[in-house]
Amino acid sequence: MSLQRRLLAEGLGTALLLAVVIGSGVMAERLSGGNIALALLANTLATVGGLYVLIEVFGPISGAHFNPAVSAVMAWRGELAVAALLPYVAAQLVGAMLGAWLAHAMFDMSLLQFSAKLRSGTGQWIAEGVATFGLLLVILRAPAGRASAMVAAYIGAAYWFTASTSFANPAAVFGRMFSDSFAGIAPASAPGFVAAELVGAALAVVVDRLLSQAKAPRAA
Amino acid sequence: MSLQRRLLAEGLGTALLLAVVIGSGVMAERLSGGNIALALLANTLATVGGLYVLIEVFGPISGAHFNPAVSAVMAWRGELAVAALLPYVAAQLVGAMLGAWLAHAMFDMSLLQFSAKLRSGTGQWIAEGVATFGLLLVILRAPAGRASAMVAAYIGAAYWFTASTSFANPAAVFGRMFSDSFAGIAPASAPGFVAAELVGAALAVVVDRLLSQAKAPRAA
Amino acid sequence: MSLQRRLLAEGLGTALLLAVVIGSGVMAERLSGGNIALALLANTLATVGGLYVLIEVFGPISGAHFNPAVSAVMAWRGELAVAALLPYVAAQLVGAMLGAWLAHAMFDMSLLQFSAKLRSGTGQWIAEGVATFGLLLVILRAPAGRASAMVAAYIGAAYWFTASTSFANPAAVFGRMFSDSFAGIAPASAPGFVAAELVGAALAVVVDRLLSQAKAPRAA
Amino acid sequence: MSLQRRLLAEGLGTALLLAVVIGSGVMAERLSGGNIALALLANTLATVGGLYVLIEVFGPISGAHFNPAVSAVMAWRGELAVAALLPYVAAQLVGAMLGAWLAHAMFDMSLLQFSAKLRSGTGQWIAEGVATFGLLLVILRAPAGRASAMVAAYIGAAYWFTASTSFANPAAVFGRMFSDSFAGIAPASAPGFVAAELVGAALAVVVDRLLSQAKAPRAA
Repeated sequence: MSLQRRLLAEGLGTALLLAVVIGSGVMAERLSGGNIALALLANTLATVGGLYVLIEVFGPISGAHFNPAVSAVMAWRGELAVAALLPYVAAQLVGAMLGAWLAHAMFDMSLLQFSAKLRSGTGQWIAEGVATFGLLLVILRAPAGRASAMVAAYIGAAYWFTASTSFANPAAVFGRMFSDSFAGIAPASAPGFVAAELVGAALAVVVDRLLSQAKAPRAA
Repeated sequence: MSLQRRLLAEGLGTALLLAVVIGSGVMAERLSGGNIALALLANTLATVGGLYVLIEVFGPISGAHFNPAVSAVMAWRGELAVAALLPYVAAQLVGAMLGAWLAHAMFDMSLLQFSAKLRSGTGQWIAEGVATFGLLLVILRAPAGRASAMVAAYIGAAYWFTASTSFANPAAVFGRMFSDSFAGIAPASAPGFVAAELVGAALAVVVDRLLSQAKAPRAA
Repeated sequence: MSLQRRLLAEGLGTALLLAVVIGSGVMAERLSGGNIALALLANTLATVGGLYVLIEVFGPISGAHFNPAVSAVMAWRGELAVAALLPYVAAQLVGAMLGAWLAHAMFDMSLLQFSAKLRSGTGQWIAEGVATFGLLLVILRAPAGRASAMVAAYIGAAYWFTASTSFANPAAVFGRMFSDSFAGIAPASAPGFVAAELVGAALAVVVDRLLSQAKAPRAA
Repeated sequence: MSLQRRLLAEGLGTALLLAVVIGSGVMAERLSGGNIALALLANTLATVGGLYVLIEVFGPISGAHFNPAVSAVMAWRGELAVAALLPYVAAQLVGAMLGAWLAHAMFDMSLLQFSAKLRSGTGQWIAEGVATFGLLLVILRAPAGRASAMVAAYIGAAYWFTASTSFANPAAVFGRMFSDSFAGIAPASAPGFVAAELVGAALAVVVDRLLSQAKAPRAA
């Protein structure tokens, strides 16, 4: 397939993913009357449904990464041409920002805004590392035809079991910086999250290899 | 298959879909004690389950459109005979109205009623356009055997990430005009919703072609 | 397979189904602090998960009817030997009662009890008819391998879109008479529910035939 | 596959499972403002999603038991080498404890802690027996390729229909002793739970055989 079509798929898919994450967060916050557990539950279910569908729709075209950490690992493994990595990441970042703006347009919010929600600290960073480690492990080891359901189910779980609600995606961090809403993250908190995500992704590559090779892994 | 059987399937399927959407909205509103997020969550889950089942049951007979925008796109693509388009739409509209009345009969409400819930404004219209764009993109690109789960999951997400709670279906708009309940829409708001839906559906046809062809798409 | 094994499967499966329905109702009512929508939501999700699993586990042995209306339709269609019908129904009824008692044992409630929850009126009876009509239509038309997911999803939707919360099963009515809890039904209300269910099941047989034959059905 | 790789899979999988169960319990408790039904609902959905994914990821390597009762039954049936049983159980127990600590690290809690939540009494023990009986029956009779979805759906139902919220796993009991949070269990209550689980697992082996053999089973 042409690179242009694949970039369109990555950009549009990431835009729709961020519109789902941010839009459902806005809707949930508005309707839940301050009940944060209920808001996160609705935000989770919308994300699970949306992610499953977007991976099915765009997977055959571009691989449906929607995530620079995923694209980087795929380039490292030779499943994405190295020359395509930067264009992929650029499409994802632009798409993420446009997706935030699309959510704002639907909910009659000002398009350009920045989150004030600080998210940092050791626990949050460990959580982002764990979240991204799990996501990559799922992607690298999913049986054929089940990646869409598995990634969606995993992210649904990770919204709750990680203390950071599992961004697990530098493009999601980027897009959510642009939304001062339920799903937002302050720009000052972004570098810590992205660094933790890259560490988690790298760890998944190592553990995936340990699980695949015959040579002795050290347990846990 | 005979057209009559297919029209029975479209009419009955659309009636049951509207009974699910409106009935679960009434139940949710009655039980939730004013907690709108909880009501919409229940309404969402019932719609997801019902839609999945209805598409599986009626898909082999009529295609399980239940939606004039879907039938119009299918006629445009030559997958539905043009002569069948108007009968399909008529069956869907009649079915939608009967489905609303069935819900009312189950919940001991007066059968004939009209919604007073105004739904309009730029954000709502953009949301309906986005909702229908996404629905058609999912339908046009779903892998074989997965359309039922994907459409259901998509609508579940779209109930939350679009500001309009995703009608995404002119027949649903028509049927929901006839119910002054949680899922209703005032007749005065219907034309705006339907127009936005048709624009979204047309946009999906264009984007589907961009994703399929080798010639250069413009990103986003 | 021997009839004894199939009756064991029907009895054990129906017992576990009732334990799931009644037990999750008790748990939900205890934890939800009077929020009925939340209680029904938990009750719904537990039923959906349990039903899916029970149909998968017992389907290959007995067909996993767990429901006299289903067994009657299967006997009518020649898919269950007529001589097996009464034993099937007996196993289902005994299983349902034992399932209620199992739920009571787990929740430290007195084993033998009767529900005082009256459920009657035109709306309730229409709802039970619609619920059972839909259930049978799903069973009669489910593609191979999808009946478990479809029945579970359908019942999940029907808990909300029918005014009766969809018993749709005379054995469930029987078992739930024995529990004065969230999911119970007063014995005085049982005959009306069962009659409505049988009418709904018969209607499904008729509509299934209309959808299958080439001769002209009357639309809607 | 080498035993070391399989033990790594069992240990890591059990650790992640406990991190999901305990972490989502902490998150749910913090956000739900004392609404226990809502907290358990979120805890349930996270567990369902996580379990499905973990079984898919680690199943092809180690069988994805994550549970000494499952490993013991598999050894009994000859599907796990007897010599591998103790190492499997050790990996599961160590993994469970590490998973609890990982959850604590993410949520900025002190790593080493013990639950003070007493869980005992006849109802609780019957519930644990029923929960483990059902889990093993599901595992022993799941059709090929469906075990992951079935086990996840089953546990989701069992969180609600059993009075004990379905630990159904001695390694889960062990790990949850180390967390004084929503999902915890006091060490004093652990032996009763484990004993009930083993009885339930043994009962499942018996019933599975009754359902498989032609000789006359006694009904119920």
